[in-house]
Amino acid sequence: MPLMTRDEYVDSLRRMHKRVFLLGQQIEDPVDHPLLRPSLNACAMTYELAQQPEHAWLMHAASSLTGRTVNRFTHLHQSAADLVAKVKMQRLLGQRTGCCFQRCVGMDALNAVDSVTYDMDLALGTGYHARFLRFLEYVQENDLVVDGAMTDAKGDRGLHPSLQADPDLFVRIVERTSGGVVLRGAKLHQTGALNSHEILVMPTQSLREDEADYAVACAIPADAPGVLMVAGRQPSDTRKLEGGAIDVGNCRFGGHEAVIVLQDVAVPWERVFLAGETAFGRVLVERFAAYHRQSYGGCKSGVGDVLIGAAQALAQIQGTDRASHVKDKIVEMIHLNETIYACGLACSAEGRPAASGTYLVDTLLANVCKLNVTRFPYEIARLAQDIAGGLLVTQPSEWDLAHEEVGPLLGKYLRSVARYTTEERCRLLRLVENLTLGPGAAAYLAESMHGAGSPQAQRIMLARLAGVEEKVRLARSLAGIENGA
Amino acid sequence: MPLMTRDEYVDSLRRMHKRVFLLGQQIEDPVDHPLLRPSLNACAMTYELAQQPEHAWLMHAASSLTGRTVNRFTHLHQSAADLVAKVKMQRLLGQRTGCCFQRCVGMDALNAVDSVTYDMDLALGTGYHARFLRFLEYVQENDLVVDGAMTDAKGDRGLHPSLQADPDLFVRIVERTSGGVVLRGAKLHQTGALNSHEILVMPTQSLREDEADYAVACAIPADAPGVLMVAGRQPSDTRKLEGGAIDVGNCRFGGHEAVIVLQDVAVPWERVFLAGETAFGRVLVERFAAYHRQSYGGCKSGVGDVLIGAAQALAQIQGTDRASHVKDKIVEMIHLNETIYACGLACSAEGRPAASGTYLVDTLLANVCKLNVTRFPYEIARLAQDIAGGLLVTQPSEWDLAHEEVGPLLGKYLRSVARYTTEERCRLLRLVENLTLGPGAAAYLAESMHGAGSPQAQRIMLARLAGVEEKVRLARSLAGIENGA
Amino acid sequence: MPLMTRDEYVDSLRRMHKRVFLLGQQIEDPVDHPLLRPSLNACAMTYELAQQPEHAWLMHAASSLTGRTVNRFTHLHQSAADLVAKVKMQRLLGQRTGCCFQRCVGMDALNAVDSVTYDMDLALGTGYHARFLRFLEYVQENDLVVDGAMTDAKGDRGLHPSLQADPDLFVRIVERTSGGVVLRGAKLHQTGALNSHEILVMPTQSLREDEADYAVACAIPADAPGVLMVAGRQPSDTRKLEGGAIDVGNCRFGGHEAVIVLQDVAVPWERVFLAGETAFGRVLVERFAAYHRQSYGGCKSGVGDVLIGAAQALAQIQGTDRASHVKDKIVEMIHLNETIYACGLACSAEGRPAASGTYLVDTLLANVCKLNVTRFPYEIARLAQDIAGGLLVTQPSEWDLAHEEVGPLLGKYLRSVARYTTEERCRLLRLVENLTLGPGAAAYLAESMHGAGSPQAQRIMLARLAGVEEKVRLARSLAGIENGA
Amino acid sequence: MPLMTRDEYVDSLRRMHKRVFLLGQQIEDPVDHPLLRPSLNACAMTYELAQQPEHAWLMHAASSLTGRTVNRFTHLHQSAADLVAKVKMQRLLGQRTGCCFQRCVGMDALNAVDSVTYDMDLALGTGYHARFLRFLEYVQENDLVVDGAMTDAKGDRGLHPSLQADPDLFVRIVERTSGGVVLRGAKLHQTGALNSHEILVMPTQSLREDEADYAVACAIPADAPGVLMVAGRQPSDTRKLEGGAIDVGNCRFGGHEAVIVLQDVAVPWERVFLAGETAFGRVLVERFAAYHRQSYGGCKSGVGDVLIGAAQALAQIQGTDRASHVKDKIVEMIHLNETIYACGLACSAEGRPAASGTYLVDTLLANVCKLNVTRFPYEIARLAQDIAGGLLVTQPSEWDLAHEEVGPLLGKYLRSVARYTTEERCRLLRLVENLTLGPGAAAYLAESMHGAGSPQAQRIMLARLAGVEEKVRLARSLAGIENGA
Repeated sequence: MPLMTRDEYVDSLRRMHKRVFLLGQQIEDPVDHPLLRPSLNACAMTYELAQQPEHAWLMHAASSLTGRTVNRFTHLHQSAADLVAKVKMQRLLGQRTGCCFQRCVGMDALNAVDSVTYDMDLALGTGYHARFLRFLEYVQENDLVVDGAMTDAKGDRGLHPSLQADPDLFVRIVERTSGGVVLRGAKLHQTGALNSHEILVMPTQSLREDEADYAVACAIPADAPGVLMVAGRQPSDTRKLEGGAIDVGNCRFGGHEAVIVLQDVAVPWERVFLAGETAFGRVLVERFAAYHRQSYGGCKSGVGDVLIGAAQALAQIQGTDRASHVKDKIVEMIHLNETIYACGLACSAEGRPAASGTYLVDTLLANVCKLNVTRFPYEIARLAQDIAGGLLVTQPSEWDLAHEEVGPLLGKYLRSVARYTTEERCRLLRLVENLTLGPGAAAYLAESMHGAGSPQAQRIMLARLAGVEEKVRLARSLAGIENGA
Repeated sequence: MPLMTRDEYVDSLRRMHKRVFLLGQQIEDPVDHPLLRPSLNACAMTYELAQQPEHAWLMHAASSLTGRTVNRFTHLHQSAADLVAKVKMQRLLGQRTGCCFQRCVGMDALNAVDSVTYDMDLALGTGYHARFLRFLEYVQENDLVVDGAMTDAKGDRGLHPSLQADPDLFVRIVERTSGGVVLRGAKLHQTGALNSHEILVMPTQSLREDEADYAVACAIPADAPGVLMVAGRQPSDTRKLEGGAIDVGNCRFGGHEAVIVLQDVAVPWERVFLAGETAFGRVLVERFAAYHRQSYGGCKSGVGDVLIGAAQALAQIQGTDRASHVKDKIVEMIHLNETIYACGLACSAEGRPAASGTYLVDTLLANVCKLNVTRFPYEIARLAQDIAGGLLVTQPSEWDLAHEEVGPLLGKYLRSVARYTTEERCRLLRLVENLTLGPGAAAYLAESMHGAGSPQAQRIMLARLAGVEEKVRLARSLAGIENGA
Repeated sequence: MPLMTRDEYVDSLRRMHKRVFLLGQQIEDPVDHPLLRPSLNACAMTYELAQQPEHAWLMHAASSLTGRTVNRFTHLHQSAADLVAKVKMQRLLGQRTGCCFQRCVGMDALNAVDSVTYDMDLALGTGYHARFLRFLEYVQENDLVVDGAMTDAKGDRGLHPSLQADPDLFVRIVERTSGGVVLRGAKLHQTGALNSHEILVMPTQSLREDEADYAVACAIPADAPGVLMVAGRQPSDTRKLEGGAIDVGNCRFGGHEAVIVLQDVAVPWERVFLAGETAFGRVLVERFAAYHRQSYGGCKSGVGDVLIGAAQALAQIQGTDRASHVKDKIVEMIHLNETIYACGLACSAEGRPAASGTYLVDTLLANVCKLNVTRFPYEIARLAQDIAGGLLVTQPSEWDLAHEEVGPLLGKYLRSVARYTTEERCRLLRLVENLTLGPGAAAYLAESMHGAGSPQAQRIMLARLAGVEEKVRLARSLAGIENGA
Repeated sequence: MPLMTRDEYVDSLRRMHKRVFLLGQQIEDPVDHPLLRPSLNACAMTYELAQQPEHAWLMHAASSLTGRTVNRFTHLHQSAADLVAKVKMQRLLGQRTGCCFQRCVGMDALNAVDSVTYDMDLALGTGYHARFLRFLEYVQENDLVVDGAMTDAKGDRGLHPSLQADPDLFVRIVERTSGGVVLRGAKLHQTGALNSHEILVMPTQSLREDEADYAVACAIPADAPGVLMVAGRQPSDTRKLEGGAIDVGNCRFGGHEAVIVLQDVAVPWERVFLAGETAFGRVLVERFAAYHRQSYGGCKSGVGDVLIGAAQALAQIQGTDRASHVKDKIVEMIHLNETIYACGLACSAEGRPAASGTYLVDTLLANVCKLNVTRFPYEIARLAQDIAGGLLVTQPSEWDLAHEEVGPLLGKYLRSVARYTTEERCRLLRLVENLTLGPGAAAYLAESMHGAGSPQAQRIMLARLAGVEEKVRLARSLAGIENGA
């Protein structure tokens, strides 16, 4: 089986030579940097669980290319059951990490590029699909993490790529050679970029015919010459540098995002999967978006499980778990969380094969899924803060808890129900803080809002796909008006 | 194929001798009563669509008993795909009728009784299942409408059945004879009772061991001696008696509910499927409820389609369909409507077989589905009223529209965008009124709230099924606290 | 004191000769028509309460014209305390009638016309204000009901008045003579038109300079030649004709709306208060709208009290009033209802005098008030339906309750907690039906949505009045950016 | 005028000798500590604005004790207008600081203690009121900041104070001497403790008669022997130690909370205002809570203004301010923000004098105000994150922006609409991060939830104060049922 262990994965990253910047400094060893390590741990969990027999049914899949067992994160979905399994795998990982584990974007990009290159070859006589499958086989056989790189810098949101003051505000081909293409630009919000082996570049939006240079999809090794990464900040990020174990909230796991700058990066033709075919750029964007909107039904409901559990644990510790209003809030959190999950399942179960054989999700329902994700985690977080109580944001640091004079006083006065320790309470409060006001909230809230497109992007798709005119006909007919529209 | 045509169905009802009361009078011919006919039309649509080849894939199923093609409304679900098809069939019927078509309760009851009698026989050595299958085969072969009769009168909600001031407030066995049982009591909120051939009685809630007389499930012909039905009122119900075609809103279709009183009705043993086994009564209630909570994901999203279509049609007629706030409201309606549908699909796709082979829905997700149904149709209705405008409730009657002097004035002043007639506008306003403030609202709103159990019933199930303690363990583990709970 | 008694008011209407159409027939005696009488009762309550000493502090005011005690409904607000008293009076009336009592629109129109004519005279040298005060004194001295007539037919919402296919779709001056003006057009949604003595016409929206003929405000006796009224339908309206006392829900009170058609109605100059001054037409619309948006904070919270009370009464009768989820829903209803009221109070307490001395409400907060009114009654209604239970829409008619055979059976099976009668339960269910699905819902829901302008109208005002640029400056300053915008 | 300047205030704090712990260390000079200074700046703004003539009408009041001009934060409200002015002053300060300025709790405590001691003396013949007025005069004349210290540690929420495992979990009198009382215990969530001159201790909840030792109110100098403070952490708090100016988001202002431990602190009788009178302890809690629930209508709407402004500024910078969905979200934020403010105004305008002459707010409406505050800021924050875009949580640090190599790249790629600089964009994103995921969110969200009591506390008050039985009577009467209840 071409499956790496967790340690092999970490070692493979160590062998790379990425140019990474963080907090104003170039980081020589991102793998062991304390601020970045939790993020690596989260991504590594996609390898760790794949080694556990009880999760094999979810984490493994039989490659459609080789027949060999591959990590599902590198798999092309061959059935609606595969799509459902994907969502369940994501929920499991969300539960185990309480954060973004970063490997979904690449999975979704691979699946989108597959069917689009197939369709494109059919329509235009190009030869992208075979190239892509060779790349994919390499990814599968080496069990790689792929960064799906879509979001451009975008500049002025009111202007098309070609009309921006600076032509580089969308990634573009600045040169075509016999060997390949040369890219310039930047990709923003690159989830898991530092933990990736490969970057799979895609266009970010519909393009006009005269914007062919912006229509580019290709694969770039994450440490290729000209690739530079600047890790973003998250709330309370530097707590990870303090050396403690409580105030970080989520002790072992986290996420990260980065700006990837492409400074005239050369990409050979065998790694280029779209180069100028603007019409198919748009299809690629939509298919990727649909897959990724489905993804949130899985990962965010998994993180939601953790937050619900933390709220319930705090209620137990604080002696409020039997209060009817607390029970009711827990039920509400569950309801919202399961609604997200249900939407993720529904768009999967309704999946249909593309021409390439790879299964697409139901696009309408995938957009419905994501639109709920832009709302419900916020309400779940609000309810968690309600149950957690004010200490959530007034709790002294773990250094005070450990202080010779002050520690015992805090131990005395922050103790709640006697059979729980003060430290348990403090740890769970920090976990809720992490997920609702800390680095976890960057993923659980802001990423739920904007990942795979901001809510308005989903709304536009709903308007387009819902068949409103057919509904008008139904209504007119029932109202006794002769002809439909 | 044992499928009745629409006309055969209507004739079959005509041959029955039900005792029906309505508006203080006994109705000799309920089939042709103008207030009741729209309801019959809606139920008949389950026959009509089954005759249309393009809907055969949804409306037909291969009987698990006989292998013959039966109407899906009489079918035992043999796969998750069957469960999904059920939801799609319900959405189709909701779209075509714009109301409750009444045949789901019986379908859900049949499926629930099937697996429960199987389990019960296995556990207790009873012989209910074979009896039930004989009854079911009769239903399938004759393509019958079955009224699923669950909700008892209940009296004081704070008291158990056996502690009520009047022992008849829950249907009970008042006598057991060698021939069968004798039942007394009433079933409330009996959807489609007047259009049914059979009544499938079930208990309404968990019972204590000493309440065995209340644990009864059995089948009764809808016109059996001792059966009496009182049809309930709906908002604006008597508009159907006015002889018009506009003010009724939904010209051809409607629904009805009835109180069924059982006045010492004798039921032979071969039609008795539960008689005293209190423990299995509770299982039956839960399985039926789960199926019926799934159902709402289909039918209500179908009616939602009609309401969305009516709102959009009105926006077109009134010249507001291009206003961004109107487009946004239409999208919001779509989003909420599809979320309901997605939950219906999800609990279906996650269905698993019971021991009898019949598929059960995922109970947690079915409850999530229904809980959303208790909310979203209300918001969709609110948005529809927003788009419709105030004329929704200030519009003069169709008799004024037709009046010699006043009619032309109204035709002039209620005209909106010139390419639509005033009548079109008035008809669509009446349809929105029907669905949000009229008889349609009884089904689209109040029944969405209370059908298959009021929201609190769903919340209790969520609390029970969601695995909160497992979530606590996940949270404690991520917070770095050693042992789970 | 120039205050009429209730009986004098009814008699005064009887002496009028309005042309009224209803359900396709001209009504000779609208005062005694059973479908219309509840509406008259509601309006008459504004006279009845004014006769009760305990309400004198709210219902009476000292006229700013004569110093005499007048009914507050005819009063020009002389202080913020007057504005607050207005809201409290409206809440009281909402509580006592459970419906729209119809006299607010005229009150709001009188107050708006007062300050606008004053300002206009000052700016343009016209003489409208003195004319208006003479009219107002007549209204005060005779304690009249004034119909505030604003909403035009409007036709195609996307077109200006002068661009409509039919020029009459907005009320307009078709002729100016030495004696006065002649009006043609229609006013829609005329609340309480049939119970009014006078019609105070106002323009419905901003007008262009070349639309001077549409800029008209004037007073017309409600039975003037050329005035014709067509009463609109409400849900379940004809139950009032059945002769019963239960199924109507609200036994004594109701509301009505009418289309008023003006067929070349001649208005003498002394009753004309705006004729062509388009710029002031817009001011008049905005001031009237602000007053009327304030009004809803009073009347709808009063009706909300009734609905909350009905839900609580049903919970008591059905034995659920101690369930924590029911108590929680009652609290939620209270919270939403009081929020509406608070907004009504706030925009009043912040009132400021216009140049004429009459107090204006705070326009921003009045719009906030109304926007909440377009939402919260719907949620209150939803919660009331939740508490009421499914019998709300499945309950047989009162004629069944009274039927020889069926009546006792229903009495037996619809009985709930023993110390309450079945009839009490049925009456309260009908009241909730009235307010959420019946004629009361036309006022409590649809009118809450559209009265005084649909929600989008309020949103536009919020955008205009909220001072967003000042907020931008605050934010930029705190973010450390040098200059404001 | 007894008004301190900002500098005098800071100096006065410098002269104190508080025992303060932060991040595990005792802080010798809290006034100049970079992590604490922003919080001091915010509190100092209450002095700064009082020096500005244009704000004198809000910030100044004529003392009811001396007639001299005092800072309104030390004033006893003498009219409803005073209560309204309080709310407006709080909104102004929220706008100017974008955070919690900390001086309200003391103001609310002073006003509550005033009327309660007056009532208590009248009822019990005690002499607390005169003592209190002497203390208040000292506060007014010296323009002091008072920490209102209510919330106890509470331990197990399910147990009364006297039944806790540790008797000190509620502050209590451990000794009564001829000189005064000795207190032991801790007060949690002490807003602005480090910036206060005095601590005004109050009981935290209703007490049983046998819990007299827990019924204590008194004033303690903030640096009295035995007083120890541990400052709590806030999200991203240590960014203030980094020495930058961008990533902190709110450059100059912030808040803080502390645990105050009272280690057998001796309080002389002249500073004791309640000592054992349990019945009045409850009244004190309720009056304080009502005042403080009113307060949130002011301060949080002020901070809301900043957040709305930041969202709008970002929309302008990013080129999305003209998109209809963005405009609509801004309007929604305004609407929610003004609703909170309206509730704050309403409970103020409806204020009524206590026996002491000091004005109380309308308690029902104050609870309505606060309950909205537990919801709307969360939705405003969600919408702000929607408008801000994903860069909110993926933006590199200011140190990267300033880095030699990376800085220019980020300057290029994070540039949006050309007429704005990248730094402006980054600063405003950090401000939104501060307010929704950073230290500002501790105040704007979590404190909105729990300050002045968690939402359930408000709900209990609504249930108690809303007069539900009167509403039942209204409903029964309208339903035609003879007698009220």
